[in-house]
Parts: sequence; structure tokens; C-alpha cells
Amino acid sequence: MKRRIGATERLYPMPAVLVVGGTDSEASALTVAWIGVASGTPPTLAMAIRNTRHTLELMNRTGTFTVNVPSTSQAAQVDYCGITSGVGRDKLAEAGLTLVSSALVEAPIIAECPYNMECRIAHELEIGDYVLVLGEVVEVHADEEILAEDGSVDVAALDPLIYIAGAREYRALGEHVARAYAIGKTVRNAEEEA
Amino acid sequence: MKRRIGATERLYPMPAVLVVGGTDSEASALTVAWIGVASGTPPTLAMAIRNTRHTLELMNRTGTFTVNVPSTSQAAQVDYCGITSGVGRDKLAEAGLTLVSSALVEAPIIAECPYNMECRIAHELEIGDYVLVLGEVVEVHADEEILAEDGSVDVAALDPLIYIAGAREYRALGEHVARAYAIGKTVRNAEEEA
Repeated sequence: MKRRIGATERLYPMPAVLVVGGTDSEASALTVAWIGVASGTPPTLAMAIRNTRHTLELMNRTGTFTVNVPSTSQAAQVDYCGITSGVGRDKLAEAGLTLVSSALVEAPIIAECPYNMECRIAHELEIGDYVLVLGEVVEVHADEEILAEDGSVDVAALDPLIYIAGAREYRALGEHVARAYAIGKTVRNAEEEA
Repeated sequence: MKRRIGATERLYPMPAVLVVGGTDSEASALTVAWIGVASGTPPTLAMAIRNTRHTLELMNRTGTFTVNVPSTSQAAQVDYCGITSGVGRDKLAEAGLTLVSSALVEAPIIAECPYNMECRIAHELEIGDYVLVLGEVVEVHADEEILAEDGSVDVAALDPLIYIAGAREYRALGEHVARAYAIGKTVRNAEEEA
């Protein structure tokens, strides 16, 4: 039995990443769960940021930002960057996070996060109290420890943080369920045999 | 040690949902991992769909669509809708999925998926070979079985499907890591005591 629970943006699951704006000498970060892929050609991300956020102002000064995917071991630091304003304080340093220069953009990446995406702002769209920032991904960095021998990301080693809206909790990634582009063939075969 | 791995849109983790376009009498669904929240005011989702997809055409006919969050037990059906074209066939029926009328929009919802979001298209943006569809969420349905006593979604009962790009696998949600808006205070307290 279904129940109508009213309009909400809550989607399950969401990632929990640290977004950095600014430069090597002045940067700030905020925690973002409202982020997803906007295109594959070119690789582009879309994320919603409240229009009053300090980090958004820093992002717009250079037209660049970085998306830093943390591991579950960094949950406290990620949460700290989400609940603390960066105005007048260096919350990244307070959280024990270190900035490293990006390869192609002005916004730096976070050394402690094992997966980092350098982005250039391609477009911004105001929706209510939020700005939807579209960022073209121009380079990605990964810690050697999370790369498999073939160079692909080993998601078990990455151990990314997941945000659950409503319950306001962080969770880890769970067990393997099935292979994509494969398990669906069992439905097709069943259909063909029917 | 970090390694540059080149530009990619791969983000970790991503949801894996079924998006339905069309009407009660003619509908189709596709599997979408490239989806996220675009605003909270009003609640809005953003998703990237390849511009050639049949379901996109059906969505645009009514200006509405639904986002249906499956459980891990539906991985085969979800994957089937991702690898099969809906042109000239009823892949939802083939996958054993049932459509139910929405409350406010023309596109129906999928009965078997425990969480369903009714959306009206607010804006579309072409980015390369993809269309970024912005949909305002106007109603949400949840199975009684996934609702806690206070009416919030019990994410363990929902057991949502997660897509891992690159590895091309579906995973389940894992264990509780920490409480959001709470664990970060341990960093702040440590800082204040320093």
C-alpha cells in the first residue's frame, strides 16, 4: 500500500562530497549532497548550492571548483565543513584537511580525499534559493591506493561516504548486488523463452 | 600519492532509478544513474538523458515524468530497462513491472518500486549529446513498509539500489557511519579546546 507523503527533493541515496572554491592562498569548502552527473559529452556535473554560501562566491571569482570524494573515515571532517561557515575562519585547516594545487584549475583539491575532480563552471541557473552550478570536469586525480591494476577506481578501496536525507545520517557503501549490463539479460532470456 | 586519470564524469556513488515518461496508456521507462537534487525551493531534480532516448520523447509529450526508486531485489528489472530499447515493445511489462496512475501528473509510477516521485518538467538544457532535464517534484509516494512511525523514510527498509560507474555494478547501501549535523561537532570541540 502506497502513501502520499508530499513533495520533497529527498532522493536515495546521495553522495556526500567536499566542494572547494577559491585559490591556493584563499579557499573554502562546503559539504554537498545535492550533486549528480549533467552530461557525458563533455563530462559535466550539476550541483545545487544555497545562494548565500561563502564558497559559492569564492567559486565564482575564479570560475572553477573542485569536487573531493571522501572516505567514510573522513565523516567528521565532512560534517564539520557542512555545519560551519567559512567566513572569517579556515575551517579546512581546523578540520585537519590539506589543500594541494590542482593541475588545470585555480581551485585547489583536498589531499586527504582519495578522489578529486577539477571543474570549470560552464553555466549557472538560479532555482529558488539555490544556484545550480554546472561544472565541466577537466581533470581527475585518484590516490594510487584506490586504483586497480587496470587503472580503474576500486570502489571498495575508495569507500565513499553516502548521505541519507531525512534520517540525517552518513552511511557506507554496501555489498555487491549484481553486474550492470548483465543481470538484466536474465529478464530478456526469460522473456525470449516464454 | 595521487595519479592524474583524466577527465571523467564518474562520481561515487550514484543512485540507480527508473524514470517513466508517457501516460497510463502509453509509457516507457529508462534506467538513470545521472540524477541529483537541483534545488530545495521548490524541490527539484536534475537528470541527464541521452538526447536520442525514446523515454525522453514520451516525457516531453506530457511535460511530466516520474522517478521510481527501486530496492536491490529489483536489480534485474532495473538493468533490463537500461539495456533494452522501449521502441516497439513494452519493456516494463516484460520486466514484470506494473504502472499505476500518478496523483498529479500524467506520467504513471511503478507499483513495485517502494518510493516514487512525480515531477513536472521545469526546464531543459542541452549539453553535448545529453539533455539535462530539471523536474519540479510535486508529489511523492512511499510504500507503508518503508515508512517509520514518524512518517519518515526508513532507508534500511527501502534498501535502495546504487550504481557504480566504471566497475559497472550495482551495490546495496551499507552500514551506518555517523550522524550528520552531529559528528562534525567533535572536530569543533577539539578545535575550541586547542
